[in-house]
Amino acid sequence: MKKPVLVVISGPSGVGKTTIIKALLSRRDDVIFSVSCTTRPKRPGEVHGRDYFFITEEEFKSMVEREEFLEWAEVHGYLYGTPRRFIDKAMKEGKNVLLDIDVQGAMKVMETFKEGVFIFIAPPSVKALEERLRKRKTESEDKIRRRLEDAKWELGFIEKFQYLIINEELDRAIYELDSIITAEAKRVKRLLDEVERYKKEVLQGEGS
Amino acid sequence: MKKPVLVVISGPSGVGKTTIIKALLSRRDDVIFSVSCTTRPKRPGEVHGRDYFFITEEEFKSMVEREEFLEWAEVHGYLYGTPRRFIDKAMKEGKNVLLDIDVQGAMKVMETFKEGVFIFIAPPSVKALEERLRKRKTESEDKIRRRLEDAKWELGFIEKFQYLIINEELDRAIYELDSIITAEAKRVKRLLDEVERYKKEVLQGEGS
Repeated sequence: MKKPVLVVISGPSGVGKTTIIKALLSRRDDVIFSVSCTTRPKRPGEVHGRDYFFITEEEFKSMVEREEFLEWAEVHGYLYGTPRRFIDKAMKEGKNVLLDIDVQGAMKVMETFKEGVFIFIAPPSVKALEERLRKRKTESEDKIRRRLEDAKWELGFIEKFQYLIINEELDRAIYELDSIITAEAKRVKRLLDEVERYKKEVLQGEGS
Repeated sequence: MKKPVLVVISGPSGVGKTTIIKALLSRRDDVIFSVSCTTRPKRPGEVHGRDYFFITEEEFKSMVEREEFLEWAEVHGYLYGTPRRFIDKAMKEGKNVLLDIDVQGAMKVMETFKEGVFIFIAPPSVKALEERLRKRKTESEDKIRRRLEDAKWELGFIEKFQYLIINEELDRAIYELDSIITAEAKRVKRLLDEVERYKKEVLQGEGS
């Protein structure tokens, strides 16, 4: 069986990660999304179990105690965590798994999954991100300021990632994410079973 | 300026490399093909300067003496070489360059271009390659035998490459090559100028 790819996507809030990921998932059935747990309130249109598992702080903390998270972190005052069990199960079934986590979380996953693919999605510029956040009109000036400060801090981590997608044009960004997942699945290091198969066939041919 | 990608494609004769490459070049104008020199006779449909520079053994040897080749090798009794100047010029202009060379040549280029992308294109099986070579009907039984022996030897080098494309279905193989080139251009290590740009913007923001 081919080794599946664990794809970790990170980048500033408001950069368009969710939109890119949704578009990708709608066109590929070999990639599944790892749904995170969070204590932040549900936003309009979000669905429990699809976008996040919306749980209480108490529930979250007991999952932390039982070591059920691959990583967890506090972001903008709320807790976010990646349930370990789901990823293990999906990858055992040979499926590529996509995670959308913050920069801190990505750093933690890098330590555990050396073979993971780490992609940073960045805005064309901090200025462009600011404009996008203001357009949303769902947040207070104070929150926007805080998100921008965080974004500046997060941009400092790009060099830790393997790939950088700049979300200047949505269709292009989706195509680039799709390409990265396709390319990574073609890495020789993930196809050693195939390589073995050729070797066997060549040896058998020589024997006959 | 973005760092261009040097893409080296290798694999057994008859595996369909030329067809895949032609399809790719027809859909991307950011990739140019490095035309090699060879002393082998022109095949029907091939064009001097497009498929190869068809030169004499004497001309080839004087180019070798003047060190004009990035790599050269004898394959199936003919000489093949990659002119150095063309690649240098194209990459200085920021273009991705695609090379189609034999396994020996690819190994030599690996030593010079550490940042190159090395892709092996393999048949679904040795048996499938044999069928394909027989269908061509352009070569003697003796030549087919020799090509198959070479193919078996070449398959032993897959692990030295970064990517493996199995040409089972042509459209899929073209899509995979396209994805690899797109993905590699998004590698953080090739986008350090972009990373620098963010850092500057963040610093300027803090100064104001």
